[in-house]
Amino acid sequence: MSNKGLSINLATVRQQWNLGEAVAACARHGIKAVDPWRDQVAAFGLQESAKVIKDHGMDVTGYCRGGMFPAPYAAGRQAAIDDNRRAIDEAVTIGAECLVLVVGGLPKGSRDIVGAREMVAEGMAAILPHARASKMPLAIEPLHPMYAGDRACVNTLGQALDLCERLGPDVGVAIDAYHVWWDPDLASQIARAGREKRIFAYHICDWLVPTKDMLLDRGMMGDGVIDLPAIAKMIEDAGFTGYHEVEIFSSDDWWKKPGDEVLKTCLERFSNAC
Amino acid sequence: MSNKGLSINLATVRQQWNLGEAVAACARHGIKAVDPWRDQVAAFGLQESAKVIKDHGMDVTGYCRGGMFPAPYAAGRQAAIDDNRRAIDEAVTIGAECLVLVVGGLPKGSRDIVGAREMVAEGMAAILPHARASKMPLAIEPLHPMYAGDRACVNTLGQALDLCERLGPDVGVAIDAYHVWWDPDLASQIARAGREKRIFAYHICDWLVPTKDMLLDRGMMGDGVIDLPAIAKMIEDAGFTGYHEVEIFSSDDWWKKPGDEVLKTCLERFSNAC
Repeated sequence: MSNKGLSINLATVRQQWNLGEAVAACARHGIKAVDPWRDQVAAFGLQESAKVIKDHGMDVTGYCRGGMFPAPYAAGRQAAIDDNRRAIDEAVTIGAECLVLVVGGLPKGSRDIVGAREMVAEGMAAILPHARASKMPLAIEPLHPMYAGDRACVNTLGQALDLCERLGPDVGVAIDAYHVWWDPDLASQIARAGREKRIFAYHICDWLVPTKDMLLDRGMMGDGVIDLPAIAKMIEDAGFTGYHEVEIFSSDDWWKKPGDEVLKTCLERFSNAC
Repeated sequence: MSNKGLSINLATVRQQWNLGEAVAACARHGIKAVDPWRDQVAAFGLQESAKVIKDHGMDVTGYCRGGMFPAPYAAGRQAAIDDNRRAIDEAVTIGAECLVLVVGGLPKGSRDIVGAREMVAEGMAAILPHARASKMPLAIEPLHPMYAGDRACVNTLGQALDLCERLGPDVGVAIDAYHVWWDPDLASQIARAGREKRIFAYHICDWLVPTKDMLLDRGMMGDGVIDLPAIAKMIEDAGFTGYHEVEIFSSDDWWKKPGDEVLKTCLERFSNAC
């Protein structure tokens, strides 16, 4: 294995700690990278967040999240574009390696998924000049198809890479094992993403059987059915040498455990089950 | 539109009626086709089911369901093959146009989805001679990727059609809008399915936002976000002229309403929202 080690997406411990506490805890456990969410940064303060991250010598594997481009009316789409430009600025301040984009689902009242996808492409094209000027790469995170209606209408790695090709350089993908593990084209599309230099981030957690909640029942690595070592090999064979970032939303399990236990378990499982 | 009208998958009214009552109710509403489940047929009796369906002049758009091929040991896989041969015989007795296959997910304890897919191909190859001798077409139903772990490791129409190509004639697909509506390749793969003469059945219901249960919260046509008229056009443009089969699992809503109200609503929505 060739990677920089474990990064913690701070959603994983969002119920236990504020951003400052979470960063300090990660440092205490020897973890060298984090990925904060916008609401966590807003609550702790942008400059304060940047400072605590810098003071602890943390790398920032991403900033979660921009996106949510589709809207029923032009004013709503423009508001999303403006908000994404602010997210780019925040990501720069935080020192993130990329801005992660959850692109958005169907606009309210719409059944036109083809149109929603076009709104995503247009929104991304609109923010790309500012991203480039800010030297902030944009990482599309294709989400599991069960989120196509309400969160993201980009649902496969292949679809995300097609969108990257259309948009040009400085756009890539955040590959999250939870969202893509089922894809029959996974191996070939990860290889393609590597060839095209589009892998900007790699997220891990596990798919539980049964999954009790579509959003907040993600599993700790090793507790589910995803062959994480196989996907890690695909990712690393494709040339990605960055951090592997744990992102677990778990309202009834990991969010209820002490944060130190969560981080300790993440580290153990990263060694044994990934 | 060019189709034979509405068929009712009898799972849609499984909490209200036994098979005989459901068939009689469909006839009363002017519905000319049904698709029964194996457990419904077993409960009512195979010969009795065949008789009540025939007596009411019903077409049978499918028989639900065979499949579930992966298993940890060879004996389990052989048991699945034997059971599928019995399902083929039952489908013949019932007069079904095809045996619908939900192929099965990961074997218990496994994380090897590639291996599970191979078990599906091997299981289908094993039952195909009996299906052909019985003149019973096999319809692979690709299921939504959220079922990849526990129900079906064939998760896209493209993947199902690749499997059909490998297996040869007399194998096709049951296309269920609920499972495939999110697929960015949907239009091209439905067109391909038509060219390759593989569309054996078309199922409809709707995707609710939010979806409260991954299995039992399917929506009535028109209540969700699927562009059913667009998919119907793809299906019919691809040359499918059969029935459109409503299949709704809805533990907290439609399964609790009077069966006659459900059938009446299916007919109205088929006219207005499909």
